[in-house]
Amino acid sequence: MSLLVVGSLGLDTVSTPFDKVEDALGGSATYISLSASYFSAPINLVGIVGSDFPNKYINLMEAHNINLEGLQIIEGGKTFRWSGKYHYDLNVRDTLFTELNVFENFNPVIPERFRKSKFVCLGNIDPVLQMKVLDQMTDSHFTVCDTMNYWIERKKDDLIKLLKKVNVLIINDSEARLLAQEPNLVKSAKAIRNMGPEILIIKKGEHGALLFTHDIVFSAPAYPMEMIYDPTGAGDSFAGGFTGYLHRTQDVSAENLKCAVIYGSAMASFCVEKFSTKGLENLSYLRIQDRFREFMNLSRFNEKE
Amino acid sequence: MSLLVVGSLGLDTVSTPFDKVEDALGGSATYISLSASYFSAPINLVGIVGSDFPNKYINLMEAHNINLEGLQIIEGGKTFRWSGKYHYDLNVRDTLFTELNVFENFNPVIPERFRKSKFVCLGNIDPVLQMKVLDQMTDSHFTVCDTMNYWIERKKDDLIKLLKKVNVLIINDSEARLLAQEPNLVKSAKAIRNMGPEILIIKKGEHGALLFTHDIVFSAPAYPMEMIYDPTGAGDSFAGGFTGYLHRTQDVSAENLKCAVIYGSAMASFCVEKFSTKGLENLSYLRIQDRFREFMNLSRFNEKE
Repeated sequence: MSLLVVGSLGLDTVSTPFDKVEDALGGSATYISLSASYFSAPINLVGIVGSDFPNKYINLMEAHNINLEGLQIIEGGKTFRWSGKYHYDLNVRDTLFTELNVFENFNPVIPERFRKSKFVCLGNIDPVLQMKVLDQMTDSHFTVCDTMNYWIERKKDDLIKLLKKVNVLIINDSEARLLAQEPNLVKSAKAIRNMGPEILIIKKGEHGALLFTHDIVFSAPAYPMEMIYDPTGAGDSFAGGFTGYLHRTQDVSAENLKCAVIYGSAMASFCVEKFSTKGLENLSYLRIQDRFREFMNLSRFNEKE
Repeated sequence: MSLLVVGSLGLDTVSTPFDKVEDALGGSATYISLSASYFSAPINLVGIVGSDFPNKYINLMEAHNINLEGLQIIEGGKTFRWSGKYHYDLNVRDTLFTELNVFENFNPVIPERFRKSKFVCLGNIDPVLQMKVLDQMTDSHFTVCDTMNYWIERKKDDLIKLLKKVNVLIINDSEARLLAQEPNLVKSAKAIRNMGPEILIIKKGEHGALLFTHDIVFSAPAYPMEMIYDPTGAGDSFAGGFTGYLHRTQDVSAENLKCAVIYGSAMASFCVEKFSTKGLENLSYLRIQDRFREFMNLSRFNEKE
């Protein structure tokens, strides 16, 4: 039983009102894998980098039991780079530059051993590539898929085709409204579930997340944070914690999906407490469970008899 | 033991993308009292209207066990009128006109019998008037106070003075940020609690509500609604349900405050399902408890052992 993660790996240059980092470890597959690594091992990663990708990052991922057999390292190529600047309220960010580099010609090849993975987490990349991944899978599998407004606006037809093949779609609230062309979130959820994914998660940033299945709606609280150092990777950390927990428990019942949403939220809260992937590098399952219980205390209420 | 409600009574002309009503029953004291009336009786109302205030509305309130001994009816005067228009997404509204009329000279006089009320709910009116109410109270009491950006911007000093005398402040997220001059909600909450109220509730519209006390943070989910007919009065209905439940249970412990927040949220959800006060006119305590349980199902999760 294994968990396959496909997405981007990159070098991020990020500034927030508090600090700035250059060429820090980034990319959707990176955050997803690191986050999921606390729940199950090994994580099978498929992605692409250039030969400039620092060895220390390779070592970091291997130390987290991430299997890099599917990582293409292009000799002489340059790794994907992204730079962003967050403003004072951290909800607004400007992209300063995006250099696709080796990622431009990424063709995800799933190693033979990975094709039987029972859980697949598709990081936010071109839906055409996400479909190529699924086409290579040989056994039945449970697929969690992330996407973003960029693909909804530019590759909607490919995305719609893909959605028929995924079990869970994770998007944020503005993307849900955009995809469904509907301002009401509950109606949007219904419309998107009709496009294919039986399970939909709508992330609402500082307002938590909503889980929709055919028979339940679940509202997960947001962890109350006084300080967010760097929002980069929060959504990927969510997807990694969510899928990692499902893989660990091998249980996709509605009750367990709720817990997976909380574990995803917990991982996102750890992620934004530090710059880049730092918040995901030195955790323990015990600390993650403590935060899970904090989420429980945050949202639980009981009426006296 | 009784619950005193002071605020505005008005005639609202409201249009939404779905319908329009003219001179419908409105005002903060109206929504608060109707909402609270399902939890305890009688509700003691203090407010002002003109002689044009329709008898059917007087009858409606009396049928809900609202004691109108403190309602000033100004012979020949005109009732406060407000008109608003909601846009497609219902989060944006334009005020078309506001006619203060008799409300311009409102001087809240608390009838002798009402001055011993143990619970006071101050609807969203000028903080100078809210203070006048508290100055007339003779016994110790638990005060819940609503306000809005208008008063934060124009009467901040008076509001700050008032805040030292109230137990609970209820505001929305943008008002909390404005009052605390701080973009982070958790830090805002801390700053506002330092201004006086030991309990703070921050309403977040379609994202639920947060409760802050000296030792807990509680996150209440929003009821997932496919259709909101008229958002007018949602905040007042929340305040009425919240205070009404506290008055009913005579218990202001942290655990019970959480339940009161859920009952407040339930009443707000009933309010917006119909135009004007219609959503609050024909409820039963059983139906309200059913919705309370729906909120529980919406937010509860349990990890398997």
